[in-house]
Amino acid sequence: MSLTQKSANKVCNGTLTKYTFTSSSLGSLETSINVFLPSSATSTSPKPVLYFLSGLTCTEDNAAQKGGFFSAAEAEGIALVFPDTSPRGAGIEGEDESYDFGTGAGFYLNATKSPWDKHYKMYEFITSELPSKLSDLPIDTKKASIFGHSMGGHGALTLYLKNRDLYRSASAFSPICNPTACPWGEKAFNGYLKGGVEEGKQYDATLLLKEAKDGVKILVDSGTADDFYKQGQLLPENFEKVAKDKGFKDVQVRLQDGYDHSYYFISTFAGEHVKFHAKFLKQ
Amino acid sequence: MSLTQKSANKVCNGTLTKYTFTSSSLGSLETSINVFLPSSATSTSPKPVLYFLSGLTCTEDNAAQKGGFFSAAEAEGIALVFPDTSPRGAGIEGEDESYDFGTGAGFYLNATKSPWDKHYKMYEFITSELPSKLSDLPIDTKKASIFGHSMGGHGALTLYLKNRDLYRSASAFSPICNPTACPWGEKAFNGYLKGGVEEGKQYDATLLLKEAKDGVKILVDSGTADDFYKQGQLLPENFEKVAKDKGFKDVQVRLQDGYDHSYYFISTFAGEHVKFHAKFLKQ
Repeated sequence: MSLTQKSANKVCNGTLTKYTFTSSSLGSLETSINVFLPSSATSTSPKPVLYFLSGLTCTEDNAAQKGGFFSAAEAEGIALVFPDTSPRGAGIEGEDESYDFGTGAGFYLNATKSPWDKHYKMYEFITSELPSKLSDLPIDTKKASIFGHSMGGHGALTLYLKNRDLYRSASAFSPICNPTACPWGEKAFNGYLKGGVEEGKQYDATLLLKEAKDGVKILVDSGTADDFYKQGQLLPENFEKVAKDKGFKDVQVRLQDGYDHSYYFISTFAGEHVKFHAKFLKQ
Repeated sequence: MSLTQKSANKVCNGTLTKYTFTSSSLGSLETSINVFLPSSATSTSPKPVLYFLSGLTCTEDNAAQKGGFFSAAEAEGIALVFPDTSPRGAGIEGEDESYDFGTGAGFYLNATKSPWDKHYKMYEFITSELPSKLSDLPIDTKKASIFGHSMGGHGALTLYLKNRDLYRSASAFSPICNPTACPWGEKAFNGYLKGGVEEGKQYDATLLLKEAKDGVKILVDSGTADDFYKQGQLLPENFEKVAKDKGFKDVQVRLQDGYDHSYYFISTFAGEHVKFHAKFLKQ
């Protein structure tokens, strides 16, 4: 195994371990992940895995420290994996200038535009390389679901909708639901993709849902006091409309009264999201 | 009311609000607090309060963001107050040189040594000024308990033992139990107090417990994988010995196997501590 352990903390009777490794999909840069194993995980009893994709500016640490997921994950016997939100240290000019592009803002896509295309391949990293790196841990990566927050909610929904064979369910807190129609998504797609927003349509959860076959299992929570929701960056209503038009009964979009975009919101519903995925992961 | 609201976040159906005010006990410096009100708190139904004192290097934010206290506080109908760990911006030479003395390290005492005695009066701040600042909020400060972590665990235990009329119960995660006998306490007492460690005996939980009348309600959790425990900074065994010698049946000292000094440890037992205090606060 090419994982290097950096730290370990006992939490909620399980263990959170930070690992680093050199990522081939991210152009041979070192990346860090946090992995939570419930106490019941052993080599003879590997556990299902739930990936959490964080939002703009975050690292692998924010959701581990503030998300409040461990109590439910321990109770359900589910492993959690928290990757970083972008490659780091690619050395591209302008990489660190914006909070919403470059470092900390990989948008879970495969960049096709130079110079970003050498390192910014978070889509390939999450869907392909990351599961292979977990092979020596007591994790059954064939039983996987995915969730995330904001940009990471966009990542969770799109990676799920594009890879129904890899993930059993998806959920999201305050996701960017329709990135081809909001400023964050337009900036990312125009920056990372040769074909700009047009090419970005393949990474738009609302458009992907239009093409989806039935059986999708999705839970979305968004807060009504979320400034980014008010600014039209998230557009859960567009996603919900498609779900209704398609008659997808297992897509729930909930607007939570008075909640904002913060980890206080995430931690409030953290246990509920873990339990949502447990239904499918433990089948 | 002289509180200035800086922000508010809905969490676990209650509200966390950050306030600032100019503190007289801290020598007219501005200080910040976070206040969690459960959704059941109203002016006609004020709620009991549980103060959380944080450890070295922390501000009013760390435990609010990472402690995991809100779900239990909402369920029990208890307000939480998170003060800062020291005055900030006193302008004293050397104030920012150490992580364990000066800024972020007020040690919940009243400094008597110049130049610290003008601002470093966290004992007076917590026991006297802070409750008076809460008077316009739906909080019943006559029903109060106190808990904390590490240096803040020392603060919680000592403030409780010195003010049994102010607080109904105390609990602590990884507290500095016997500061006159450990390097952190010796440095703090020699630095802040004219009489050094001798004067510091009045701020030593283990020594205070020796003199306590029965009826003390205390819960202490400390982790066996805590490096500061291994280094002899915490000394829960000394505190426990006194409790046993005195026959105090309502003092529990628990060594939790494999846990360290981090917020992952705190968040694991957060709900249990809130419920411990609820028993006394709701009588």
